[in-house]
Amino acid sequence: MAALSMLACFVAVLLCIRTSRTDTKEDEINPSQSTSATSQHRTDSLTILMLLGLLLLTILTVWLFKHRRFRFVHETGLSMIYGLIVGAIIRYTSKPMDVSRDYVRAKIISENHSYYTDNAPTALYVSFFARNSSADPTIRQYDLGAPVDEPITEPPLERTVTFDPEIFFNVMLPVIIFEAGYSMKRRHFFRNLGAILMYAVVGTTASCLVVGGILYGTTRLMHDITFSLNDCFYFGAVISATDPVTVLALFNDLHVDVDLYAIVFGESVLNDAVAIVLSESVEVYGELSSDSFNTEALFQSVGKFLGVFTGAFAIGSLFGLSTAFLTKFTKLKDFPLLETALFFLMSYASFQAAEAAEFTGIVAVLFCGVTQAHYTYNNLSAESKDRTKKLFELANFLAENFVFLYIGVSVFTLQPLQWHLGFILSSFLAIVVGRFINIYPLSFLLNLGRSNKIRPNFQHMMMFSGLRGAVAFALAIRNTETEAHQHMASATLMIVIVTVILCGGFTTPMLQWLQIRVGVEEDAPGQMNQLASVRNQGGGENGQQPGSTPSEKAWLVAKWYNFDTIVMKPLLTNHRPTLIETLPKCCLPIAKIFTTEEQLTQGLGGPTDHDSDTDMIIDENQLSIGGMSDHSQLDQASVSPNHQTGRKEPLQFDDGDLGQFEADDKPLTP
Amino acid sequence: MAALSMLACFVAVLLCIRTSRTDTKEDEINPSQSTSATSQHRTDSLTILMLLGLLLLTILTVWLFKHRRFRFVHETGLSMIYGLIVGAIIRYTSKPMDVSRDYVRAKIISENHSYYTDNAPTALYVSFFARNSSADPTIRQYDLGAPVDEPITEPPLERTVTFDPEIFFNVMLPVIIFEAGYSMKRRHFFRNLGAILMYAVVGTTASCLVVGGILYGTTRLMHDITFSLNDCFYFGAVISATDPVTVLALFNDLHVDVDLYAIVFGESVLNDAVAIVLSESVEVYGELSSDSFNTEALFQSVGKFLGVFTGAFAIGSLFGLSTAFLTKFTKLKDFPLLETALFFLMSYASFQAAEAAEFTGIVAVLFCGVTQAHYTYNNLSAESKDRTKKLFELANFLAENFVFLYIGVSVFTLQPLQWHLGFILSSFLAIVVGRFINIYPLSFLLNLGRSNKIRPNFQHMMMFSGLRGAVAFALAIRNTETEAHQHMASATLMIVIVTVILCGGFTTPMLQWLQIRVGVEEDAPGQMNQLASVRNQGGGENGQQPGSTPSEKAWLVAKWYNFDTIVMKPLLTNHRPTLIETLPKCCLPIAKIFTTEEQLTQGLGGPTDHDSDTDMIIDENQLSIGGMSDHSQLDQASVSPNHQTGRKEPLQFDDGDLGQFEADDKPLTP
Repeated sequence: MAALSMLACFVAVLLCIRTSRTDTKEDEINPSQSTSATSQHRTDSLTILMLLGLLLLTILTVWLFKHRRFRFVHETGLSMIYGLIVGAIIRYTSKPMDVSRDYVRAKIISENHSYYTDNAPTALYVSFFARNSSADPTIRQYDLGAPVDEPITEPPLERTVTFDPEIFFNVMLPVIIFEAGYSMKRRHFFRNLGAILMYAVVGTTASCLVVGGILYGTTRLMHDITFSLNDCFYFGAVISATDPVTVLALFNDLHVDVDLYAIVFGESVLNDAVAIVLSESVEVYGELSSDSFNTEALFQSVGKFLGVFTGAFAIGSLFGLSTAFLTKFTKLKDFPLLETALFFLMSYASFQAAEAAEFTGIVAVLFCGVTQAHYTYNNLSAESKDRTKKLFELANFLAENFVFLYIGVSVFTLQPLQWHLGFILSSFLAIVVGRFINIYPLSFLLNLGRSNKIRPNFQHMMMFSGLRGAVAFALAIRNTETEAHQHMASATLMIVIVTVILCGGFTTPMLQWLQIRVGVEEDAPGQMNQLASVRNQGGGENGQQPGSTPSEKAWLVAKWYNFDTIVMKPLLTNHRPTLIETLPKCCLPIAKIFTTEEQLTQGLGGPTDHDSDTDMIIDENQLSIGGMSDHSQLDQASVSPNHQTGRKEPLQFDDGDLGQFEADDKPLTP
Repeated sequence: MAALSMLACFVAVLLCIRTSRTDTKEDEINPSQSTSATSQHRTDSLTILMLLGLLLLTILTVWLFKHRRFRFVHETGLSMIYGLIVGAIIRYTSKPMDVSRDYVRAKIISENHSYYTDNAPTALYVSFFARNSSADPTIRQYDLGAPVDEPITEPPLERTVTFDPEIFFNVMLPVIIFEAGYSMKRRHFFRNLGAILMYAVVGTTASCLVVGGILYGTTRLMHDITFSLNDCFYFGAVISATDPVTVLALFNDLHVDVDLYAIVFGESVLNDAVAIVLSESVEVYGELSSDSFNTEALFQSVGKFLGVFTGAFAIGSLFGLSTAFLTKFTKLKDFPLLETALFFLMSYASFQAAEAAEFTGIVAVLFCGVTQAHYTYNNLSAESKDRTKKLFELANFLAENFVFLYIGVSVFTLQPLQWHLGFILSSFLAIVVGRFINIYPLSFLLNLGRSNKIRPNFQHMMMFSGLRGAVAFALAIRNTETEAHQHMASATLMIVIVTVILCGGFTTPMLQWLQIRVGVEEDAPGQMNQLASVRNQGGGENGQQPGSTPSEKAWLVAKWYNFDTIVMKPLLTNHRPTLIETLPKCCLPIAKIFTTEEQLTQGLGGPTDHDSDTDMIIDENQLSIGGMSDHSQLDQASVSPNHQTGRKEPLQFDDGDLGQFEADDKPLTP
């Protein structure tokens, strides 16, 4: 009933928009600046209202599905479908309208002579002359921004529904990506770090090259569209960003195998960062070389890739570490609201700082999120832990649904788009091949060194779960200036829609068909024992990280863990062991400065090996509302105590995994 | 130490901005579209970073003050002072720069002949001609928006720091005002409803007229500035909005007398709404009459006032009631994230709906907040109650501090401003007289009918606490087109700064000097007994509401409470009594439809007269971090159990105050 009444309201809003547009038309007969501004404002409000209505409808439908235990469509898919329907309605019911009369046609001229330019101007100075007077004109400045770039007969409503892609980059994506980083504090993530880095960095680059290559080949065969080599690799980078949202929500729901979960999750989050930086590097290459191969440009773009990635990593981590430092050494904890505000502002500042330094804000925010989760979270008061979790969870939910809703609407309203069936089909082919090259050969290589092999059914599932989502869409619509980019945007739209609906919908049957076990509790005793036995088997340094490749990688990871345990965590968090315990005696004066009283009185009652990765930022059941639903219905009891534990013992510390390192470190402690 | 290191970072950012500006200058030598866009983006990021840095600095300083128990400066005052300092640095260290070369000067011409316009254009079509070719030019559309309207030699940094006032109206103010409405669920507020409405509606209108009148008189004496009668009343409306933030934070801190608190709080929140609508009505009057008195225009503007107020009230309440309805009749409660998202989206939709219907969004959002608190809050799951509280608390904290920071920066960077000492001084005189007329005569009238008199020392305190803040500032900078409006903006800025710093700083001494008792616990037994005895004294209908005027008002309020208890609350919330119990027997079938099972099984264990106004949305100690600080330090124990109670008994119901009505209603219930 509620959903029905909601639907009625929604239809009313849509009717309102139609009426409002008729009003606008009447206004035009008597053109007046303030009237047209008012009616524009009204249309904007109605558009936002429509999107809000769609979001509300999605929420109610999702609730209905969950309530009836109908698990075929995920909420993001649903948002997209609603968006598609409304986009189609807007597109096919609106008649082209004349442009409002008080728009002024202008030809750009300079002071005295006509001035023809092919650079878009960034500001306009208009001289206003007083009527029947020879007084000096008043000059007013207008900011121009990017051209709206539309045929004049286009219906205004479509234009208002299409909004600035920069909103995705500056508001929606940072939220989604930060949340992904903040929820990455998972033991299984770090256990599979080697594999994840391999898939995300090497795999994504390979996928970019393969997709670019295939499309370069196929577009040579199509004579009606022109794609440069650079365009092809740009598209390869854009479309290689896989989406962490939909499949993982279902994995959560079904409690799929934890290693599979960690690998798919880690890969899809990190490869967004890789794809964003890759696409920027390809652009740099394109600017430097003009369609012929250019070694210098290649090195410069590789340099750009490394520079931007390192820079963003450094800035993101720096802001995260500063927050940890501030929360440890001030008693900000006494005022949880101030603490949460600090946390929020520092995280957002990492984004803006990276943008100001001309690195990529989104990548910085990802690493800032990881650092905040790994260090700062341990210092926060119980209230701030709870508040930050809930705040980012809600923001992420809204941003995600908004993005997918907007993807749906865009299919019909985004201008300019070019549709070419051949190109779209060949890009489908290309991403399948690209994904294949990413998964199977790399898995083979990884398995050579892994004691805990990535089984074939896991590989098939990873192949299947390479759907594209928000990041690919945002990258594709960011630049639609050339015809090639307009083709890319339409192909990306189709790929996102098809993969989200198909792969999202068939995840459950696929898991059954591949016989991947579900219903695994992360910390089930059996699992733990199995884990312990794997650990005990590993003797030397190589064996310590059963989930990563041996040789250099494992050694590097082990060294880092060592450093993290001895220096970073004692320095940056309020937990035992303190620096006094971990550093050699000669460093005692320095160690004392960086050890707080709280840290000394902490955890004296018992052993400090309680693993706070079980007290994850985003519990397994909270990553998506999908998971939450089941818990709140099925085992509410098991969630609440967990929650309570989090509140009563907020000062847990994750070194359960690091037990073996601590044993190694014993000689170092006093 | 932390604050020091923060300061170092901040200086680094400021230096960066200066460097970046030098970079921009260098870029100009080689003008290029993409370079200038990049450097603009970089300057924007640096500006945001600077504001974030200031906010962080404010947070750390506030923490330091609280930590050292230094209570003279409130955080909003502090934000403002930091803003002033940085604004001054920006203003007096930056040299005027030439405009970037790739700006294009244009004269508006139509197809064939020059076209002089005094209406600002809303869009620009630029013809791009291919060089050395006779092909048709490409026409691209640019949206113009409002003119930036600045002398060309102004330094660009000042322009970027000055951002669109519409952000205040569409982002910051809705948050602040919604939070005010959402925290209004206070018994003492409703007990003093009559007085609050009197001060807010009658008082604000009187203040607007008095201020307008005085300024009309004084501006006749100043020959160097021109103010129309309409300008004067517009300023009267703008400057009559008092600010709820600063004084109330201190009242909270000190646990000042609850009735005084309720009256000051209620007045300052409601009068924002009144002032906003008043200023719009004055604008309507100005458009219709041209500076001579016009009866028709007067009636139309009064009609506009009533229409907008009623419309906004209706839309806000409607959205609030719909949310209550949805949360009661769906089991959305099982999925707290969905529930919170619904709550958030419905509240924001009320803003956009009112804007689309051409009422005032901010007023709608206020009433939406009140309705959400009064009905919806009771239906929410414990988790959503907690989450919505924390979300809006944080958003409010950030918005408030941002606004006051920005007020500080604006003094030096807002362009265009006109400064006139005589006008500023006379406006100070006018607001003091206006406040005097608002408080004393109305208090006298109110006391005629109140059994619980508003004592003279309360009246003096109300007089003193009429500081101006965010709303007045936002209204004043919204329109700075004419010279008169530029004078208003500068006068408003000065009034805001002086009243926030002076009145904010001297609240504590003033309370002592006026011998107003502090340290009052809202539900202290003595207080309750006193309350009860006042109640028992009142015999007839007039006596039932000791805190409001008798005769019609009390009767109306009583009738509303009656209706609320018998129909609205049973219909819209999940609490006892149900409609089955409150409605007459003939309505039983309807009553059954609107009664949920949860409602029937609810509260059978005990009496339902537990007063949930003690479980307020924003507890006394949460309205500002000021209050929270004391609690978390002094009586943490007393906060935690409260919190726990909220979680364990989330389904309380506020009818403690309505006991006497229920007694009256007995004959109606089956």
